[in-house]
Formats: sequence, structure tokens, C-alpha cells
Amino acid sequence: MTLNNRDSTDEIGQEMYQIIGDLYPICRSITGNGLRATLNLLRQHIPLETHEIPTGTAVFDWTIPKEWNIRDAYIRNSLGQKVIDFQKSNLHVVNYSVPVKAKMSLAELKKHLFTLPDHPEWVPYRTTYYNESWGFCLSHKDLLQLEDGEYEVLIDSSLEPGNLSYGEYYVQGSTADEVLISCHACHPSLCNDNLSGVALATVLAKHLGQLSLRYSYRFIFIPGTIGSITWLWRNQNQIAKIKHGLVLVDLGDAGKFTYKKSRRGDAEIDRAVVNVLKHSGSDYEVREFDPYGHDERQYCSPGINLPVGCFSRSPHGEFAEYHTSADNLDFVRPAYLADSFSRSLSVLQLLDNNRRYVNLNPMCEPQLGKRGLYRMMGGTQDGGIEELPLLWVLNLSDGEHSLLDISDRSGLRFDALKRAADTLLQHGLLKVLEGS
Amino acid sequence: MTLNNRDSTDEIGQEMYQIIGDLYPICRSITGNGLRATLNLLRQHIPLETHEIPTGTAVFDWTIPKEWNIRDAYIRNSLGQKVIDFQKSNLHVVNYSVPVKAKMSLAELKKHLFTLPDHPEWVPYRTTYYNESWGFCLSHKDLLQLEDGEYEVLIDSSLEPGNLSYGEYYVQGSTADEVLISCHACHPSLCNDNLSGVALATVLAKHLGQLSLRYSYRFIFIPGTIGSITWLWRNQNQIAKIKHGLVLVDLGDAGKFTYKKSRRGDAEIDRAVVNVLKHSGSDYEVREFDPYGHDERQYCSPGINLPVGCFSRSPHGEFAEYHTSADNLDFVRPAYLADSFSRSLSVLQLLDNNRRYVNLNPMCEPQLGKRGLYRMMGGTQDGGIEELPLLWVLNLSDGEHSLLDISDRSGLRFDALKRAADTLLQHGLLKVLEGS
Amino acid sequence: MTLNNRDSTDEIGQEMYQIIGDLYPICRSITGNGLRATLNLLRQHIPLETHEIPTGTAVFDWTIPKEWNIRDAYIRNSLGQKVIDFQKSNLHVVNYSVPVKAKMSLAELKKHLFTLPDHPEWVPYRTTYYNESWGFCLSHKDLLQLEDGEYEVLIDSSLEPGNLSYGEYYVQGSTADEVLISCHACHPSLCNDNLSGVALATVLAKHLGQLSLRYSYRFIFIPGTIGSITWLWRNQNQIAKIKHGLVLVDLGDAGKFTYKKSRRGDAEIDRAVVNVLKHSGSDYEVREFDPYGHDERQYCSPGINLPVGCFSRSPHGEFAEYHTSADNLDFVRPAYLADSFSRSLSVLQLLDNNRRYVNLNPMCEPQLGKRGLYRMMGGTQDGGIEELPLLWVLNLSDGEHSLLDISDRSGLRFDALKRAADTLLQHGLLKVLEGS
Repeated sequence: MTLNNRDSTDEIGQEMYQIIGDLYPICRSITGNGLRATLNLLRQHIPLETHEIPTGTAVFDWTIPKEWNIRDAYIRNSLGQKVIDFQKSNLHVVNYSVPVKAKMSLAELKKHLFTLPDHPEWVPYRTTYYNESWGFCLSHKDLLQLEDGEYEVLIDSSLEPGNLSYGEYYVQGSTADEVLISCHACHPSLCNDNLSGVALATVLAKHLGQLSLRYSYRFIFIPGTIGSITWLWRNQNQIAKIKHGLVLVDLGDAGKFTYKKSRRGDAEIDRAVVNVLKHSGSDYEVREFDPYGHDERQYCSPGINLPVGCFSRSPHGEFAEYHTSADNLDFVRPAYLADSFSRSLSVLQLLDNNRRYVNLNPMCEPQLGKRGLYRMMGGTQDGGIEELPLLWVLNLSDGEHSLLDISDRSGLRFDALKRAADTLLQHGLLKVLEGS
Repeated sequence: MTLNNRDSTDEIGQEMYQIIGDLYPICRSITGNGLRATLNLLRQHIPLETHEIPTGTAVFDWTIPKEWNIRDAYIRNSLGQKVIDFQKSNLHVVNYSVPVKAKMSLAELKKHLFTLPDHPEWVPYRTTYYNESWGFCLSHKDLLQLEDGEYEVLIDSSLEPGNLSYGEYYVQGSTADEVLISCHACHPSLCNDNLSGVALATVLAKHLGQLSLRYSYRFIFIPGTIGSITWLWRNQNQIAKIKHGLVLVDLGDAGKFTYKKSRRGDAEIDRAVVNVLKHSGSDYEVREFDPYGHDERQYCSPGINLPVGCFSRSPHGEFAEYHTSADNLDFVRPAYLADSFSRSLSVLQLLDNNRRYVNLNPMCEPQLGKRGLYRMMGGTQDGGIEELPLLWVLNLSDGEHSLLDISDRSGLRFDALKRAADTLLQHGLLKVLEGS
Repeated sequence: MTLNNRDSTDEIGQEMYQIIGDLYPICRSITGNGLRATLNLLRQHIPLETHEIPTGTAVFDWTIPKEWNIRDAYIRNSLGQKVIDFQKSNLHVVNYSVPVKAKMSLAELKKHLFTLPDHPEWVPYRTTYYNESWGFCLSHKDLLQLEDGEYEVLIDSSLEPGNLSYGEYYVQGSTADEVLISCHACHPSLCNDNLSGVALATVLAKHLGQLSLRYSYRFIFIPGTIGSITWLWRNQNQIAKIKHGLVLVDLGDAGKFTYKKSRRGDAEIDRAVVNVLKHSGSDYEVREFDPYGHDERQYCSPGINLPVGCFSRSPHGEFAEYHTSADNLDFVRPAYLADSFSRSLSVLQLLDNNRRYVNLNPMCEPQLGKRGLYRMMGGTQDGGIEELPLLWVLNLSDGEHSLLDISDRSGLRFDALKRAADTLLQHGLLKVLEGS
């Protein structure tokens, strides 16, 4: 479970960027054919299973909404010119807009137009999932150029009984204990918020599928909020298997890594991510849980309370491009995507290898020298460097401390301690604590 | 239980300042008619109950002392001029001085004179409660002007079997659990150390008496040390009812707030005061408990160990005017008194409203939108602000977390969370945890 | 158990420096006559018991090595001149070198020569205990002057079955609970790393031998690593008696004090040393345990896990002179040795006196005034200073808090609290908690 060389990392970044590019044009929503097309496209990479849940199904306190589909939308001015055109960008229509075919004055129309005055070139992203309404989004610059007169408005959409779709991929490990990787796949042409997480989950799933693993890994591609609620409702008898989890989102931009802890705050996933980031050599930020953000809101609701954190670069709502047309293919870069892949994989590697060991020679140190594990010439001042991971693992392998505990206490990298543990296992000085 | 508008705050400050002005001239001590007169005067504001404990009564390791009363005192020089006169300031006589009528040389007299050389204009405050002695206090400037010659000394006091007096006022709440508010009322003409606490306790008591409360509130007006010991001795079977408490002292000066924690250090009262001060927008200081100070010494003795902290502005002994004639009516100001009232009341409100709740829909978030509790248009960047208190209360209302816990963890103001909890209660999404 | 005046401290420093001077010339190793001679010399100060463990004895995972002795060693150049001479410094021979008598070229010889290019005037200290080999150490300056030609090499040593020696001294206290003081005595002419610890342990042992103590104190003078392993192996049924312990090393140089905590990290010894250093008025550093260093590696191995820390000035490997000829009689000074003695003794005093007490008058404060323990004149601003230790001891003597706890919480010096506790004991206000 490693991926070390530079070339393969570059390839991964390109692969992720390609996935984002393929998915970008699709008009996704929390239901409908855009979401289905997205899951289908991912099936080129991983054998995703798709689920369809009918409109009206009660999922905890919620109800699966009507399915929304859209074919076209535009606004024409009195000269018959399209001043807003859904075919140019699916952000132009407020997501989940009901069908409209009408003529109206500019004053009337303006009640349904949304812009970003602070970023006059950008088109905002707006939704109206749970409130039957309609609207258009456009740049503030374009809004200012609309002249008085009658406008023709068309939204050729449908909002009818149908299904909510989501995708799921399960990588079988040697135990039934699971790691949950969740990303939302319901946003239309937005790259960082949405597609970067989708692409990262996809390549992680593809990569893990080739490995021999301790944990089983479950990847879910869901519409935000209603999707995680639906998934939890359908799997409520299975969620006790989930030992760790991550929500992946906003992972393609240039920002530093941001990790938002699970509600528990001291879960192994929280400590694992912090450990990996601490040794990453890059700037990062760790935040306590709060009940606002992405699907961790549902995973960390009080009756669910799973150890699921949220892994991002620039987080939710804290970059100007968030939920605007500027969150586009220029905003995410292959190098950042690749870096996000490496860190995520390091976290999963850490979890998969985080065992407790028992020192089989706990009374004083074992004589490492006679096993070739200790420098032969005493009295040097710097000879201890390579021996330190061995000594730390021996010292703290009392069945109480995991390798992560030892890494945190010693300040040594997890992988160096893992290699030391493997060496000590080979020499019969250590055993894995059963059940750890 | 609120007091928000500016005018009523100003009125409260004036009312407190008026009480201090009325009490200022009285020569109080730990026993005697000055203390009785003080309690009587307070009865104009609240229906104080007065207790009298006879001299000689054993109270734990202590004994109620003889009652001290004083009518007059002076020192005349050889020309018959009064060079020190009790009628001008009751600080001139060492409190609890035995009766004296004598003539003596300046050299002899000086053994009984106390001044403050570092503050030559000020008269110190001195006591000799448990050591039968006598003395006079004067400004250092006046001392330097005393000429050799014979002086006539008169202290027309009495130190005889009598009683120790204290006052008590109980505000009945819906439970028998009590909040104790304690202030000492034994100092003569000193405003900040003593009368500010007395005035604050009085107006708090008056205010709470008009409200519907969960806790019962017990206000005691006692002589320092011997008074709290006496009260604890008389009520030792009742003190288990006391769930929280504050000693109020030094609350009229311009200094920042200072809170000294209870001996327990993590009591709810400690956390409540810190929470209120943190959100006050003003500078403040929180200190760990130490066994020196005011009556919290007794409340926090190891066999009593009540959760009682001490709330002050400039604390005990840390302002130059402390225990001098400069702690006068100019040193305390209505605005500071009113501010102290507001903060104290916020602390009591917090305690009274600090319940634990149970989220009745703990599996995922409830759909707030269908109840009108969530913005209808998705995709805005700042829409979460008003929803946050609702989300925090829902997320942490697992029966483990009180509103104070939620405030501390979220950083949100207690009152915003209280409003959110009330809203959720109205919508049937929450219930109060029984017994919390 | 006190040592306060300046003169006796000076004397102690001189005495320690004298011991170091006497031991300096001896060629010690982990076995052999140099170690025996060292223990014999210490017997002039304390009645040390000596133990001899035969070569080949299995001690946990280790085996007692052959005994090494050396009589002479040199290298002659082709002119017959001794270019390296063991008689001038025992550091010139790699410790545990096998016997050699040979002629060889400079190129061949150089494989066996060790220098410190960064410190060209100094001779390094090297050992080859567990790998049969040989070598010489010399200054880099001297190495550069060696000319091509044939060299005659002689090491007149023996490596044969024999014994490992160590010394032990037990000071009987009133309980069987022990404090372990350990120092290694296996280094040849090195002053700070080795002899400073030996000298400090010796004078501490001598000093404690004259006192009435609660704990019993066990001093061991052992070869590093193999010595502590051997001692632990031979005493494995006794080590539960050890309640606290210190490894003493590097205590004669000018560096600030450095304390490395025990593996437990919060043991009483850890807190005691930190408390003493905090009140020492000097700079110091406290470090968490790590499994690299001196014999604490063995005492803190997971199956032993004794509360033993390591007390040093400049620590292990962190001063340039470490394990070189520059760690000589100029590098350690009597004043630093005396200071190390004072701090160590303070730590042992603290442990010996660290009892829990029970306040016999826990309901409110006792009336200290009637016992002459409180100022008689109330109202002074600074009168509390001398009373504070009394009040703290009374307040926290609930059977839960030791004097060390009270010192840590109050910030007051341990000795002031000890005096206060003694005073309160005399007045019947306190008793020692049985078994504390």
C-alpha cells in the first residue's frame, strides 16, 4: 500500500484532472439524469454499484424529493436575443427550478435573477431543492446591461416523482471493519467543491482495489445532505462496522490542507490525519468539529456519531470562488490533486497499519547488537539515529500503545516505526497484539 | 430574567450608589449597633430576616466575641483642641478598641497611632477584633503636626456580652436547590470593600424577587470571617442544598473584573462566570482559588468545600485605596456598579437556564427547512449564521452536554443558544433532560 | 536532612572534585580491575558492598561478557618512537580491544585509528564491548603527522572469562520503600560523563547515612547498560520496593540542569525534580522520556517500568566534550558539583517529606489567632505573607493532596509548606494520613 515515485504521482494528478474534466459539463443535481450520468462515467474507473430510491420514501425526518431534470433554459430580450442561455453554463439556472414559460417585464424578471455584485464577472450557484421556485443566475456585469422591455423566459425542466440515485463501491479487506469514504456528487459545473472530492475518491478506490488490506473500504458517491441521510437510513444496521471515515471535498485548489475533526474529537481518524499532516512538511490547519459544513453533519449527528472527519484544502465557504462559476477547471490543478491523493493515501495506510504490538522481551532492552540491529562501535555521538525507531517500538509495545501512539509520543514518522516493527517481528522480538 | 435597556441599567447604578451613600456614615463592625442599623436600612429594599447570636456561642473552632459599640472618641492636645475626632470619620478609631480615658505624653500616645506614610493624606483602617487593645488612625500628615505635650485620650466604647447580627433573604424558586450570594457588611466608612458588595447583593435580591426562577436564591449579609463561620455552623445541615455561590466584593471601582475560582476549580459557577466574562467584550482576569481573601475562605474550607467563587473588580488588597479613607464615595461610580450588576445577573441567568436537553430526532439532522427554521435558497455563503445555534444545540443535545457546555464548545453566546433551545422545544425537536 | 550553609556546600564541592581527581587516572571498563579499583577507592567514603557476576551468566537477553584487562599499549613508528602511548592516556586504546602484537603499514594501521576531525586537538573515546576488535584513538592533529612506514602495534590486554563487578550501598530508613540512585562507573578518564555522577552518588550516600529517613536509599555503582541489566536481573523480586529513582550523570559542567522524566511521565520523582528546579532560581530544562540515553533505558523498559528519571546538567551527547579527552578535570568545577549536590538533596528531601495530612478542623478555618499563628492587627495589606503556607496546608489537607501537590498548586516552596505542616502538627490541627 505505497505510492512513492514522482512519475506515478504525476500520473495520478493527471488522471484526477481528466476525471474532473469529463464530469464538468454535466448538469448534476441531488436527483436526476445528471447524477446518473456522473455515476455511469465513474464506472469506467471502478465497478460502482448504483442505488435508486423512490420519491416520497421517508428517510428519518426527511422525504426523498421529486426527481428534477432539465433540458433547456434561456431568457430572450425583446429583440429575440438570448441574454441568458443554459446551454452555455448550467449554473445559469437555479438548481431545481420548476418549469417556466412566460413573458414579463424586467422589473418582474429581476425578482428571479441572482448575481454577485462583489465579483461582477462571476455567475453564482444557487439551489431551491425544498422550495418550489425558479430563478436564473448571471454575472452582475450582464445584469447591468439588461434593458427595460419584455423578456421571454423559458425553463424546460421537470419536477416529478422519480428516484434519488447514489453510487457505492466496497473494497473487501481481511476484516469486516470498515473505513467510509464519502463525497457528494450533486453539484453541476463546479470543480473544487464536488468534483475534486469525486475524483479523489475514485482514484483512491481504484488504488485500494489492487491492494491487500486489513480494513474493508466503502466509497459512497451521494447527493449532499439528502444522500448521506438516505444512505445512513438504508444502512443503519451496518454502521457499527464503520471504524473510521472521511468526507472528501475541496481538494484541488492551492490552499493548505484543512482537517475538521469528527464530533468525537479524539477519534483514531482525527489523530491519524493530524499525524500525517504534521509530518507532511507543509502548512496545514486542524479544526474542531462544528455542525455546519458537508455530510459530516449527518455522520456526526448525535444518534449516529461516527468517527468521520472532513478533509479539504481551502474549506467550505472560505474561498471566494466557492459556489461560483470561478470554481472551474482553472481553479483546480493536477499537482494539488496529486498531493491530496498522497496525503489521503498516507492516512489510510496509517489506519490500515496501526496495530498494537507486544514486546516479547520486555525485561530490559533485548541485545540488538547480537542481532545486527545496533552499531558495533560504542562512543559515537550520532549513532543512535537509525536505532531510535527500534528502541521506541520496543519501549512502548506493552499492548497499550499503537504505532500511532508511538509516533505521536516519539515524534518519529509512522512509516519509520512501521519498518522498525516489521524488523522486530522478523527477529521474533515482537508480536502483534491479537484483536488490535 | 433579563434587564436590557440602557435606562434601567443607569437607574440600577444610581440606586446602588444611593444605597452606598446611605450606608457610608454608619460605624459598622463585626458586631454591634452599626451592623444592626445597616441591616435595618437594607430592609427598606428587601424583606431581610435578621439573626442575633449570643456572645460566647461556640461556632466550630471559634467563639462569638463580645459585642462592640462606640459612641465617641477623640484626642485633645494640651490646648484642649481635638486633634483627632471620631465624629469626623469613624476610621479614626481602631475598630473594636476597648474604652479608654487617659492622659499621656506624645511618646506614649504614638504607640497607639497608625498612619500610612506612603499615602500621607489618607487615614488607614485598622481592627483589633480578637485582641483587646485600642488605637487611633490618622493621616501621616496630621501625625507629623502633633507637638510634644500631654494629650487627653477618650474612647467611649463598650465591649460587653451581646450578640452577633447578620441578615438573610431567601428568594424561593421552583426547586430547593440554592444559589448562595454572600457579602460582608462589617466595614465602617469604606465604599468599594464592603458597601459595593452590599449594594449589589441588595439590588440583585430585589430584582430576582420579581422573577420566576428555577433555583432558590439565598442572600446573606454578614460580618466577615466570623459571620460566614457562624452562618455555616448554624446551617451545616442545609448546605448540601447550595449548588452554586458567589462572594460579592469590590464591585464599584473602575478596575477590570476579577474572578477567583472556587476551590473545586471546575465547578459550574466557575465555568459560568468565565463564560459570561469571555463574552462581555471587556478585559477581565480569572484566578485560581487560593485560601486567602474573603469569606470564600470559609465556604471553601476542606470540610465545607462549596462551589463558591469570589467576584470582584480590583481585588482584595490590590488597589492602593483598599482599607483606607480613600475608598470613599468618589472611588465608586454608578456606571461601574451598574456594569457589575449586569454581569452578575448574566451569571445567575446562565445558571438558572443551564439545562441539558435531549434531541428527539438524533438520527441525522431534522429537516429544519420544512419547519421554517432554515434558509430556503441554498448556495449562499453566509446563510449559516442564524442557523448555527440551532445546529449546535441539536448536535450536542445528547443528554451529556448542558447549554453551558455547548456555549463553551461552540464559542456561541449562551443566550443565543438558549433562544435556539426554546425554538426547538416549541417545534417538538427537543426535550429537557429530566433532573438536569 | 538539610544542608544550608555556604561553607559546607563549598566543602562538598571540593570533596566531590577530589573524588573525581582520585578516580580520573584509572582505566575503567564494563568489567575488570579498573572498575574494581574504582569501587575500592569509593569504599574510603562509604561502606560499599561489591558483587562479582561470572562471565557467561545469562542476564535476561544478555550474557555477562568476558572480563577485560589491560596493562599497556602503544604504537611505535619505524624509528622506535612511541607515537601513541596508553600510559599517557587510557583513552588512546579502544576500550575492550583484544590483544595485538603486530607490525603493519600506515595504511593498514589507519583502519584501526579513530580521531575527531572537527576537534583536532581532542582524543575520542571508543568502545568495542560486544564485537571482538581493536583500535587506537588519537587527536586528528597527531594522525596527520604520522608518516608512511612500518608501525609496531602492541595492545597488552586480556579478554578472558572472569567477572562483572558492581558496588551497592543501602541506607536503611524507617520503611522498606526504596529510592534508587544509580550511576555508571565504567568510563575511563572522563570526568563529566561518569565520574561526576559517581562522586555525587558517593557524597549523597555519605550524607544520607547520617540522617534519620523515611525511605531506604539504595545506591548502585554499575557498568552502563550491562550493569543495570545485571542488577535488575539479580533483584527482579525486589524492584517493587523501588518507589522513586534517579540516574545521575553529567553533573559537573557549567550547563543548566536537564531532567529527563521517567517513562511514566507523571511519577512523583518527575514532579519532585520539576518542583525543585522551578524554585531553584536557575534556568533548567525538563524533557519527556525517550528510550535513548543512560541506564534509565533499562529501568524504564516496558517490563520493568520503574519511576526512574535522569538528572544531568548538559545532557548525554549534547556537549562537544562528551566522550572525548576534553571531558577532563578542567571541564568539571567544584561549584557546579556542589550545586548539583544541593539540588539532588533537595529532591530527596522533598520525597522523604512528601506526606499527605488530614486537617483535624476541616469545617471553616481554625482560629489561628488564638494560637498565636495569625497577625493580631487586622487591616494591613501585606500581613498575609507568613500565614499563607499555614492556610494552604489547612485548605488542601483533606487526605487527597500531598505537600508536593500543595506546593504545585500554591506556587509556594515545599520547605515553607513543610514548616507550616510541622507547626500545625504541633498545635494539634493536623495529622499525618496513615500510609501516606
